[in-house]
Amino acid sequence: MTSTWLTDAEQRAWRNWLTASAKLPAALHRQLQRDSALSLPDFEVLVHLTETAAARARVSELAQTLQWERSRLSHHIKRMESRGLVAREECVDDGRGAYVVLTDQGRLALERAAPEHARTVKSLVFDSLTPQELEAFTSAVSKVLTRLDQVG
Amino acid sequence: MTSTWLTDAEQRAWRNWLTASAKLPAALHRQLQRDSALSLPDFEVLVHLTETAAARARVSELAQTLQWERSRLSHHIKRMESRGLVAREECVDDGRGAYVVLTDQGRLALERAAPEHARTVKSLVFDSLTPQELEAFTSAVSKVLTRLDQVG
Repeated sequence: MTSTWLTDAEQRAWRNWLTASAKLPAALHRQLQRDSALSLPDFEVLVHLTETAAARARVSELAQTLQWERSRLSHHIKRMESRGLVAREECVDDGRGAYVVLTDQGRLALERAAPEHARTVKSLVFDSLTPQELEAFTSAVSKVLTRLDQVG
Repeated sequence: MTSTWLTDAEQRAWRNWLTASAKLPAALHRQLQRDSALSLPDFEVLVHLTETAAARARVSELAQTLQWERSRLSHHIKRMESRGLVAREECVDDGRGAYVVLTDQGRLALERAAPEHARTVKSLVFDSLTPQELEAFTSAVSKVLTRLDQVG
């Protein structure tokens, strides 16, 4: 029978994970705010749009990809729209809701912010790991993702 | 010279991390909402309060520990207070702001929610990792935390 509670080793790993998954985005957010015109949520939305065909996505797809509450995303998109980073395109034909479209200004803001963001990720996360540690880390997180996909 | 951009292996690891750090809290939140009266943010606040001396913390300390924006935390605490999970205690003497205090009802709600939450964490995260993978994962995340502490 599996115990309900985490073992000491699991507890340590879990604490580390929780702390890192709070501190790392906070550090990346501070860096972006300092060095660019974007917040971390702005950055994430823009990255996902550049990765879609024709640089556009439905709000519902974006919410699914980012795992944000639909209402949080809608509010955020409105603020990004008012700053010219994205535009909304209604599609009246299929009733499935509006598209969010990357604007030239949004693409430019992302391109300007990306190098320093990547440098920060490298410095905070990857510079301290050996190739073996990187591989072990990737493999462990992959297994968790596989499990998350199984439970849907 | 270190390249600005991530290597392919780093890119994969980073994608995995980003996806897991979005999907895992979402899955835990769904489980808590289904099986208990708490949301994941409620749960996190309550856990941190049980770990403080006298089950109380200043809003500013709590914001620091959880790495939440102060305004987000204040709003959330108000909602938890209206549900009887925490109470606020003003401290007029030192001007450093109110304490958030765990109530009996909050403690009970946490105790009821904890076993199924722990079971879910075990099932989603740890059951699929070997002891070696767990150790490698913990060590990699520890290094990232050390680095985050260095940059403050």
